[in-house]
Amino acid sequence: MSMSEQLELVSATKSFGGWVKRYKHYSRALDCDMIFTIYLPPQAEEGRVPLMWWLSGLTCNDENFMQKAGAQKTAAELGIAIVCPDTSPRGLDLPGEHDSYDFGSGAGFYLNAKREPWSKHYRMYDYVTEELPSVVRLHFPVNGRESISGHSMGGHGALVLALRQPGRYAAVSAFAPIVNPIQVPWGQKAFENYLGDDVGLRTQYDACELVAKGSSRQPLFIDQGEADNFLEEQLKPERLEAVCEEHDHPLTLRRHPGYDHSYFFIASFIDEHLRYHAERLYAKR
Amino acid sequence: MSMSEQLELVSATKSFGGWVKRYKHYSRALDCDMIFTIYLPPQAEEGRVPLMWWLSGLTCNDENFMQKAGAQKTAAELGIAIVCPDTSPRGLDLPGEHDSYDFGSGAGFYLNAKREPWSKHYRMYDYVTEELPSVVRLHFPVNGRESISGHSMGGHGALVLALRQPGRYAAVSAFAPIVNPIQVPWGQKAFENYLGDDVGLRTQYDACELVAKGSSRQPLFIDQGEADNFLEEQLKPERLEAVCEEHDHPLTLRRHPGYDHSYFFIASFIDEHLRYHAERLYAKR
Repeated sequence: MSMSEQLELVSATKSFGGWVKRYKHYSRALDCDMIFTIYLPPQAEEGRVPLMWWLSGLTCNDENFMQKAGAQKTAAELGIAIVCPDTSPRGLDLPGEHDSYDFGSGAGFYLNAKREPWSKHYRMYDYVTEELPSVVRLHFPVNGRESISGHSMGGHGALVLALRQPGRYAAVSAFAPIVNPIQVPWGQKAFENYLGDDVGLRTQYDACELVAKGSSRQPLFIDQGEADNFLEEQLKPERLEAVCEEHDHPLTLRRHPGYDHSYFFIASFIDEHLRYHAERLYAKR
Repeated sequence: MSMSEQLELVSATKSFGGWVKRYKHYSRALDCDMIFTIYLPPQAEEGRVPLMWWLSGLTCNDENFMQKAGAQKTAAELGIAIVCPDTSPRGLDLPGEHDSYDFGSGAGFYLNAKREPWSKHYRMYDYVTEELPSVVRLHFPVNGRESISGHSMGGHGALVLALRQPGRYAAVSAFAPIVNPIQVPWGQKAFENYLGDDVGLRTQYDACELVAKGSSRQPLFIDQGEADNFLEEQLKPERLEAVCEEHDHPLTLRRHPGYDHSYFFIASFIDEHLRYHAERLYAKR
């Protein structure tokens, strides 16, 4: 095994008959050590299982979803593994890396950076689409069927990864995603610093632009809380709705009165997402 | 309203059709400001609902259970409110109060302290059995039916409060409780400092001693993980098992291979506890 394929077990905790396990490994794509969390349902002890990727939002790491979303019960029932990558490279001290919550550490935006000093390490797109999937397939009993979901910045990640890789994921869904990052403050700050001025490059990481380009027909399933503090300035689901309408792209967008941007919102609807994913992960091809 | 009956809303977050709400209030029993969390199920908008008290363990506050136990889904289904008090007085700076994780702040042990300087503030028994219940009954649509559960130090609290107040709670259960604090390091350190040398007083806060005294016939329902790091030194469920056997006290003690002391363990079995509580909270009297 090469260095990047070696895993060090950080912790293993039994959960709903399966296991929440954290592993540390050296990432070649990011050139630093990374930790990820995997939930292995009880069915993984008997055979290979499908896998849902979960991409977390700003300030999160690999742990928040497993601790707060309450997904394991239904994942155990449905026999789905879940992998939560971290949200950025770690253990570096690049200039300004830790200065703000919405850029640098905890805020990798699931892209490959082009600008110095970020471009050597901030390659989360490659990490999450290539390197980590290889590691997971090598070490765990997964069956090759994958789907993807995420929250906020991670919802952006889930949509972009699915739209850019047609046929890769059996299902994609998102909670309160940043659907049009090139037009909102979070995305503009991150893209300016990671990607620079190249408009063509920026649009490759923008779900609305990808839908407009028509590169994939992947149906999108999105839940959005109407009491979300970031709804109007950062999330703007109406933009994705309009572009999907214009380009006849299949979208299910549910708006939930009273729900905010927190994990209490995610927990309230994660079971429905897991069942949506399971139906497609287990569908006959 | 007196000062101790005024509530200040800290936050309100929608969860499974109900609301997780945090409130700040001045506690007369503890002589400091306290925050508690309540989950109000959707049924509380239509009428009065029964209430389960949740007592948390060492280092926790009022938030951990709501964020990590995943109880709201089933509480919403069953129509049960849940109140999580904090685990000690807050905002004080008594000498040594913040020096260790297992004594002082975050470690009130649900007792009324007798020794200085703790006795003026560390009166969690009165706070949780009298003052906070009055506040809750005054401000929220609860129907007077109550049950109690808790984890570790909070499991100790749940057992002791139920055994000392026969008939008060429709049900009592615990996760990995400290069942015999007067005989284990956590309890001995806390009781020595809070209560002093009075053996008679100490035994009033010890579930094994209370069962031996026969003051209540309340059935006890306990889950314990067998991979719990604190099992042998601090928890010792076999002692409660022996004393219940000897005194013919009804006990259901389930041992779960592989489960540890974490909230992943609690989340795995909380639904069964909620259903156990609901059956008794809704039973005809």
